[in-house]
Amino acid sequence: VGTELLLGQITDTNATFICRELAAIGVDVYFRTTLGDNLGRIVEAIRLAAARSDVVLLTGGLGPTPDDVTREAIAEATGRPLREDPASRRAIEEYFRKLEREPTAANFKQALIPEGGRAIPNGAGTAPGVFLEHEGTVIIALPGVPREMEQMMRRFVLPELRARRPEGLIIKSRVLRVIGLGESNVVKMAEEILARQTNPTIAPLAGRGEVLLRITAKCSSEQEADERIAETEAQLRQVLGEHIYGVDQATLEEDVVGRLIRAGKTIAVAESCTGGLIGNRITNVSGSSRCFPGGVVAYANEAKMALLGVDQDLLAKHGAVSAEVAAAMATGVRELFRADLGVSATGIAGPTGGTAEKPVGLVFIGLATAESVVTERHHFLRDRLDNKFRTSQAALALVRSYLLGLSG
Amino acid sequence: VGTELLLGQITDTNATFICRELAAIGVDVYFRTTLGDNLGRIVEAIRLAAARSDVVLLTGGLGPTPDDVTREAIAEATGRPLREDPASRRAIEEYFRKLEREPTAANFKQALIPEGGRAIPNGAGTAPGVFLEHEGTVIIALPGVPREMEQMMRRFVLPELRARRPEGLIIKSRVLRVIGLGESNVVKMAEEILARQTNPTIAPLAGRGEVLLRITAKCSSEQEADERIAETEAQLRQVLGEHIYGVDQATLEEDVVGRLIRAGKTIAVAESCTGGLIGNRITNVSGSSRCFPGGVVAYANEAKMALLGVDQDLLAKHGAVSAEVAAAMATGVRELFRADLGVSATGIAGPTGGTAEKPVGLVFIGLATAESVVTERHHFLRDRLDNKFRTSQAALALVRSYLLGLSG
Repeated sequence: VGTELLLGQITDTNATFICRELAAIGVDVYFRTTLGDNLGRIVEAIRLAAARSDVVLLTGGLGPTPDDVTREAIAEATGRPLREDPASRRAIEEYFRKLEREPTAANFKQALIPEGGRAIPNGAGTAPGVFLEHEGTVIIALPGVPREMEQMMRRFVLPELRARRPEGLIIKSRVLRVIGLGESNVVKMAEEILARQTNPTIAPLAGRGEVLLRITAKCSSEQEADERIAETEAQLRQVLGEHIYGVDQATLEEDVVGRLIRAGKTIAVAESCTGGLIGNRITNVSGSSRCFPGGVVAYANEAKMALLGVDQDLLAKHGAVSAEVAAAMATGVRELFRADLGVSATGIAGPTGGTAEKPVGLVFIGLATAESVVTERHHFLRDRLDNKFRTSQAALALVRSYLLGLSG
Repeated sequence: VGTELLLGQITDTNATFICRELAAIGVDVYFRTTLGDNLGRIVEAIRLAAARSDVVLLTGGLGPTPDDVTREAIAEATGRPLREDPASRRAIEEYFRKLEREPTAANFKQALIPEGGRAIPNGAGTAPGVFLEHEGTVIIALPGVPREMEQMMRRFVLPELRARRPEGLIIKSRVLRVIGLGESNVVKMAEEILARQTNPTIAPLAGRGEVLLRITAKCSSEQEADERIAETEAQLRQVLGEHIYGVDQATLEEDVVGRLIRAGKTIAVAESCTGGLIGNRITNVSGSSRCFPGGVVAYANEAKMALLGVDQDLLAKHGAVSAEVAAAMATGVRELFRADLGVSATGIAGPTGGTAEKPVGLVFIGLATAESVVTERHHFLRDRLDNKFRTSQAALALVRSYLLGLSG
């Protein structure tokens, strides 16, 4: 509840927190509704929610200002008058005494609880929450201040709901991150597994230059959920193999840096269109100094020639955006930093600079090693920033493929 | 629409964007509902929303996988069968042709539009949106991918809705972006203006290495709102002066690149702890090739010496994280690229690598010009990625200060 949410002035991170915590104790969230500070509409929403749910959880609108009408809305929706809760009144008096300030009448409005309900103590602010059982539905109201809401969720609401959970059904999930395959290819390769899957469910999601597979299990124990997820993960790994580079919050750069360090290899980067993004991503990984001496951002052709030793005739003949120049950049930076590997990217990020022959989004990446130089051609159809990101993603994927070949 | 939202796996930033944009054109948002990828519940929610609203806007669930059922839900809720839209089919074919990949049958599911509706072109992906007028309510569906959704909102949905808006109260807002001052300093400097302000309101917000001031006016016409905002902005500019570097979605790198180009100056970057982030930010700006020949990522000390000419004794005496080395890196990179300016950053991003004398978050930045070299010392107390970002922010701010001095 909060008009500022419906005006788009703030992002609803409370909803994320509450949903995640409820999922973790096995509560299915089917509907989430955001409302402004409007008595009539909150009353309407509470009645609708109570009719379709076992639990209605509200956050926001418990403050002392006339705007804040959530407790009044609960009273009206349930037909229960508001009564002052003596313990809450004392807590408010105590809070202001510590602050060395005088409470106003508006502050004591916060001690009102619908008849038959309990106050949920607020350890971090003045507004107690509301816990009410009404005609078979539990109605809970918490303040909108994230710190207060989170504390009250952890200390009071989650234990209460966990205790009422019928069979102790819990939901767990795990995200597999897939590189080097498009979403429809992943779905095709995993078709049979996806088709027969009911618990856990598997949801494919398009990432940025990668695909995510979310495995979600609903079980009566954490151990059972872990086992089922592990089983499904093993099946998916069977068909997708090394295309799965990590799970949950893992990043491709973490995987690549880890593989470089384990292989005892160093890498230098030569970046044109990515402008430093590949180096930035590598150095986002703590410990990357063990495999990354540095790189050159060769945005101008002069820099490609002077620093990376790219031949002027090569540039004239093929243009800066070409497989030949990508190869020369990778070779040049590898030598310059005396690294085991040299990786390069050159392309047209856009929105301008494209031609019929070399359109916006055309990119070449290169990888030089002691044995060989390989290049890849990509054509991305995104905006400038996304073309840059996908180029860096392709470059890291190319390095990863090479390292996989070493260990395989 | 998206099960991942109800599981709390992602935060709903699309809702924030959509609500903010709708508020800006005077559309009152009264209800926001989040649903999983469940056909029955989406159908139910569309019917309820259509009964109480002039416009129902959905985002998410238009992808090619069997999970994605938003278009089916619209068809069912309105009783209109899905028909293939030939233009959307051609756009999908064209998209895959450019990508040099084969579309699957699932991809063509995205060309289905409920009878009587129009496809909203998707300039950034394969899923067209849906625009349908049904029994007096406009029903709109957009993809959940933020970039695609945002582009389709700006190009299609907002103009359509603006054209249909009756007369009424509108809300407009404008964000001023402030660099080089902390939030409490900004509040102090603008104290009088903040105190007497009611319409527009002014809300100060802490950004990442910057402060945002959001001016929001509620008026009966767009012109009146624009005038009031302009008046308040002028007052704030009077006290904050050149600390305001841009408005709304402007970035510091855009401002700096624009100033470099107007001043006819070029800049080269020497990055240690930022690992390429400064170059990456500069090259996020289209046209940056006019002022940015390139840079060196000198992560290892050997690279600082070999490429940037940093003296070995200097490194031994002061350490890599020092004002002296920052100055030498800036000077070195300026000469290497024959640029007008050289900017550098060296520091300890963390979480490891700190000592009592040189703690995590200690950073030195340098700026070399034809006339002088200046350095700045910063101590950031964030995590690795945020320390890197704030270092790049400080470096760009230092360049900006110098360029302001030139023009001032």
